Amino acid sequence: MQPVITLLTDFGQSDGYVAEVKAVLVTALPAVRLIDISHDVPPGNILAAQYLLGRCWPRFPSGTVHLVVVDPGVGTDRRPIAVENNGHRFVGPDSGVLTPVLEGATVVELAVPPDASPTFHGRDVFAPAAAKLAGGADLPQLGVGVVDPVRVPFPAPRKEQRGVVGTVVYVDRFGTLISNIPGGWASGAAVVRVRERTVGPLKRTFGDVDPVQLIAFVGSGGTIEIAVRDASAAERLGAGVGTEVRVD
Amino acid sequence: MQPVITLLTDFGQSDGYVAEVKAVLVTALPAVRLIDISHDVPPGNILAAQYLLGRCWPRFPSGTVHLVVVDPGVGTDRRPIAVENNGHRFVGPDSGVLTPVLEGATVVELAVPPDASPTFHGRDVFAPAAAKLAGGADLPQLGVGVVDPVRVPFPAPRKEQRGVVGTVVYVDRFGTLISNIPGGWASGAAVVRVRERTVGPLKRTFGDVDPVQLIAFVGSGGTIEIAVRDASAAERLGAGVGTEVRVD
Amino acid sequence: MQPVITLLTDFGQSDGYVAEVKAVLVTALPAVRLIDISHDVPPGNILAAQYLLGRCWPRFPSGTVHLVVVDPGVGTDRRPIAVENNGHRFVGPDSGVLTPVLEGATVVELAVPPDASPTFHGRDVFAPAAAKLAGGADLPQLGVGVVDPVRVPFPAPRKEQRGVVGTVVYVDRFGTLISNIPGGWASGAAVVRVRERTVGPLKRTFGDVDPVQLIAFVGSGGTIEIAVRDASAAERLGAGVGTEVRVD
Repeated sequence: MQPVITLLTDFGQSDGYVAEVKAVLVTALPAVRLIDISHDVPPGNILAAQYLLGRCWPRFPSGTVHLVVVDPGVGTDRRPIAVENNGHRFVGPDSGVLTPVLEGATVVELAVPPDASPTFHGRDVFAPAAAKLAGGADLPQLGVGVVDPVRVPFPAPRKEQRGVVGTVVYVDRFGTLISNIPGGWASGAAVVRVRERTVGPLKRTFGDVDPVQLIAFVGSGGTIEIAVRDASAAERLGAGVGTEVRVD
Repeated sequence: MQPVITLLTDFGQSDGYVAEVKAVLVTALPAVRLIDISHDVPPGNILAAQYLLGRCWPRFPSGTVHLVVVDPGVGTDRRPIAVENNGHRFVGPDSGVLTPVLEGATVVELAVPPDASPTFHGRDVFAPAAAKLAGGADLPQLGVGVVDPVRVPFPAPRKEQRGVVGTVVYVDRFGTLISNIPGGWASGAAVVRVRERTVGPLKRTFGDVDPVQLIAFVGSGGTIEIAVRDASAAERLGAGVGTEVRVD
Repeated sequence: MQPVITLLTDFGQSDGYVAEVKAVLVTALPAVRLIDISHDVPPGNILAAQYLLGRCWPRFPSGTVHLVVVDPGVGTDRRPIAVENNGHRFVGPDSGVLTPVLEGATVVELAVPPDASPTFHGRDVFAPAAAKLAGGADLPQLGVGVVDPVRVPFPAPRKEQRGVVGTVVYVDRFGTLISNIPGGWASGAAVVRVRERTVGPLKRTFGDVDPVQLIAFVGSGGTIEIAVRDASAAERLGAGVGTEVRVD
């Protein structure tokens, strides 16, 4: 089967940086299939990248290599790493961005070629490693084991006596607030609140309320989301990443 | 030949939603070729999506499957459908977004798998159907026939005694006003007007007028367009989708 | 090996123009691999397109065809051309946008099919030519030789008694100022200045200074760059393309 490499970066799509990475990949492995996850992660935003990675990777076929380059510490002594978990491989900086796939994973430290640009490991360190893995190399061929990869865990939701307390972990382009509260934690009678404001009980989909009304529902990522169909819930509620969400 | 699936959505490119759809497609059909039409349709804008679909689909090879997800009614009882027309197949919501390809088409209603997310049919209903079609399935294998698909037709231009009256149906990123008036409807001596303002007779291309001057011409989609080479005609004229265009 | 065509345009990604070009390419050459360099070149900006082309093309495999459509003179008598240089082929308008690859190159003029849209040569002239080249055609099969292609060279840096004087030639999405001064022109003791303001000596990478501090370094394209890790150097310094950069 054609090997798949996904790309998740904060490079943007305007400047050709992604194309330089793809040029390296396709030169090293002409048969590779490349699929963009996103290149619009806010610069250096480890948590946003984690969220996107965590949502997307399990839906790709086993054997996929995921290239994740959100790397504010590029060129410093933060380690470049490769991770194997559940039949997928991940390549990126040891900055915590790979936290969602570290549990029970094998991790190795990648070598930095002497001629690598200190400001573009995506092209000169991570892309060559991703191409090797997608081309059939095993993790141990790429470097020595790492036992203490950096973890930057998401805030966890907690159960309290009155209900559940979580936070917004991502805001999408529609202004939808995505919380870290699993849908299964909320009973049918639950009422969702954001910043002291009552959104209401969980609905099924946008069509169940007026297009300009706030709605809470279990989103396609499995956690509770708050949205307005024809407007931005983030703007309406003055909410963003880190805002408290309660289910009572 | 490698099957082709195009993607046209309002998901944006930042949030990984497109990647989730592509993960489903490539898992179901590893040999598929994926080509993006656009993911920047203004959220829920059925007419903009129709315009882009209508322009692009006939240029793809016969056998192409077009996945069109602009779906404000996702999860409600609006039907998910698949359409066959002229050797191409189209998959999307029965919201009118497929209007340009309904004439003389075969239409079936798709089943919604019980575990589909009520807010992400793109991933859980339309992508699996598109993969099946691109993999060789026939339309009747996917669902029962639909005889009354929803149509949301574009406004039609009309011929009057003094000339032709149409409207702007799309504004592109350059601020070019694209009308619904076929180029063939305008004679050589025609004068184009937008909102009472005279643009002038039809020219051939941008270079035929000063770079800051308004110009009317028969655009690459076959209808009359109004542009300014180095600026936005939409801003210059205070015009947008729905603005009247006259050819006298 | 699967033929590769890259695409570099100012079409944007919202309007389906890129998709129309890709439809032509994939119809003419079903086996082609398409890789986007950028579609967000500022409209008509020949120098920005040159910069991106110059950085990216050498990293693609030999035999790659590069489709470059930044074409403010579309439909006028500016010539459509194809260029061969160093085992790569380039197709685009003779507007100077191909300047970085003209040195020592073979150049031919492409014919314009009679039914080509005068405002969309990307789709109707350049894409068919690119597909022919990627499919195995040789340059002379596409047109007659051109001996005087248009050159719009970048400003060149110069060595003065006190040091080196160059200019900003590109600003990326992070607000990083990319100069035309080769890294090799600056000694270890060099001090970089932008608009009378001292940035400081060259550093190795972002981590070598405070995240909010200005930093000068030899960038991944080989020239001197000025950045702020967590902010925009362009905004901080009120600098842009054309701003003077000095290394003393």
